[in-house]
Amino acid sequence: MPVHTGLMRRLQLAVPIVQAPMAGGGDTPALVAAVSEAGGLGFIGAAYLSPEHIGRAAAEVRRLTPRPFGINLFAPTADPAPPRDLDTALERVAPYFADLGLDPPAAPSPAEREPAFRAQIDAVLASGAAAFSFTFGLLPPDVHALVTRRMVVIGTATTVDEARALEAAGADAVVAQGSEAGGHRGSFAADFAAGLIGTIALVPQVVDAVTIPVIASGGIMDGRGIAAALALGADAAQMGTAFLACDEAGVPDCYKAELLRGREDATRITRAFSGRPARGLVNRFMRELDAAPDAILPFPLQNDLTRPMRRAAAAAGRAEFLSLWAGQGVRLARRLPAAELMKRLVAELEDACGTITPP
Amino acid sequence: MPVHTGLMRRLQLAVPIVQAPMAGGGDTPALVAAVSEAGGLGFIGAAYLSPEHIGRAAAEVRRLTPRPFGINLFAPTADPAPPRDLDTALERVAPYFADLGLDPPAAPSPAEREPAFRAQIDAVLASGAAAFSFTFGLLPPDVHALVTRRMVVIGTATTVDEARALEAAGADAVVAQGSEAGGHRGSFAADFAAGLIGTIALVPQVVDAVTIPVIASGGIMDGRGIAAALALGADAAQMGTAFLACDEAGVPDCYKAELLRGREDATRITRAFSGRPARGLVNRFMRELDAAPDAILPFPLQNDLTRPMRRAAAAAGRAEFLSLWAGQGVRLARRLPAAELMKRLVAELEDACGTITPP
Repeated sequence: MPVHTGLMRRLQLAVPIVQAPMAGGGDTPALVAAVSEAGGLGFIGAAYLSPEHIGRAAAEVRRLTPRPFGINLFAPTADPAPPRDLDTALERVAPYFADLGLDPPAAPSPAEREPAFRAQIDAVLASGAAAFSFTFGLLPPDVHALVTRRMVVIGTATTVDEARALEAAGADAVVAQGSEAGGHRGSFAADFAAGLIGTIALVPQVVDAVTIPVIASGGIMDGRGIAAALALGADAAQMGTAFLACDEAGVPDCYKAELLRGREDATRITRAFSGRPARGLVNRFMRELDAAPDAILPFPLQNDLTRPMRRAAAAAGRAEFLSLWAGQGVRLARRLPAAELMKRLVAELEDACGTITPP
Repeated sequence: MPVHTGLMRRLQLAVPIVQAPMAGGGDTPALVAAVSEAGGLGFIGAAYLSPEHIGRAAAEVRRLTPRPFGINLFAPTADPAPPRDLDTALERVAPYFADLGLDPPAAPSPAEREPAFRAQIDAVLASGAAAFSFTFGLLPPDVHALVTRRMVVIGTATTVDEARALEAAGADAVVAQGSEAGGHRGSFAADFAAGLIGTIALVPQVVDAVTIPVIASGGIMDGRGIAAALALGADAAQMGTAFLACDEAGVPDCYKAELLRGREDATRITRAFSGRPARGLVNRFMRELDAAPDAILPFPLQNDLTRPMRRAAAAAGRAEFLSLWAGQGVRLARRLPAAELMKRLVAELEDACGTITPP
């Protein structure tokens, strides 16, 4: 066990494993509940969910397990400037819409945006979740004050300065997101490129800089990685890609198949799908859009623009048009029931801890 | 101790610490000997040394310690195509030469290139070193056959495929170089960008793919990092930046001062100094050259071109013109005698191993 186990005690965790929130449906209530039931902390990635959907998902988790779980949202970010060249962005994605038999892409508008953050927060507060985590920045101070009264509040940092800012804002713990991590980069104070610090370097530097518990994330796929995270001074390891190929994960089978043949050198960071840098397996859409990055709208407009394409591609099993978020440890992904994966992770962690002994 | 301790036994190492070879003078005989004397494996980074200089450095290490040490060279790479626009490259660096009071930069020519690789190999074979490591590719097969008869031969990989190629070529061990590492990227089969895999993800994937021992490198700065490397399945941890601020390190004081105020988000990978991608602290020369990367010659021509500037800057204490190679763990650098650093690393490793116990 790590030096400060306060976080694990407060969340009643039996094993130092946090399932990374994966906005977009990967973390079904069944997956979240399986991780929590096994003694870890499951997370509902609720950024794209309506308040009603958040309530239903949380109720389903509570039905499946009495153990603590968490909910994650994106911290509100400033609205992007209206795009100067919307037509180019629409034309750029039109061929993929046509290929999938969809109507031509529509200009994203505020009316189509995700439900308001504060309504989501109300749903989170009513959800029965024990933990609330967020990424992309700091919470509005009044929201922070509201959630911190009822839940363990966990921010996301990609640099030491970001971790310090989160501690100063009152966070109870911080996820240190290494450059290996799949999905969106959480960078907010740093330029995203400056915030690409490998987990083995980032975690001890963050641990030394803050007094709150640190959760290591990025490239951790098995018990060896969890043991490494603890050795670096983290209280727990957060893992996303490792859970994405689980039976319970709510991503299309073609996505799971890509994960299971994934290679450590086959991921890249792209803005193609959402307008915000995120790491995923390189596919046709990523390759072709990244070749003309000026045609990519800022977040969340590009995300709204590509949503119909991604939905249709998921239904049609067309991985070339899906955002195949994955971390650099992807070669270690396993297709297993989540409960079985949790058992193996704990056994591997025990092995790894037993293997390393002082010289 | 890690699972397979064959490497440590064969090299008679008491502690799983390899001092990373740092071509350019950082690894003085005093530094190399201090690491080996403490039970680790010191390395002479000899890529830029003449055969005579290699012999002298090795003799000095042998005078200081009876313990095993290693020598590192760059694997020979294909000669670059003659640059199309030499004048632009010369003009680009001319202002820095003038600023330092140097004659205008001269066109790099084959006659100025480093001593021939095979003469260096002869010096390595006569040096009394126990280990030979190399980076940038595979050895010519006849050279591999020659060195493997007398020394432990260690290649450098940045991807699983590169590690497999090194094992197939007969390497006794492989350094898995994570993206956090300071100095030159060792990538040879992969495009360097595809080979930027974080250490926590790279090491276990390489360990699973090869049967030879793996040495973890990249972002490891203290006993926590060494414990993490062992937990990931590595036999040892290779550390460069951690030793660069040591009293014995042969870099200018202004370089050590930059390391000691370094930040995890203040390094970048650049071709500005040598023509090959390498990670260092961002400074004026890097910033200005990277803004016009077309004016950078291929390796080793750019290295030859900038050498007079770097030498003069070192003598003048002008860090803005030095290649300040450093990894992403730089915030953890310590200015200590190397023997004292080795003592602390071992104590920290014991602490870290004791801290993590199975759930």
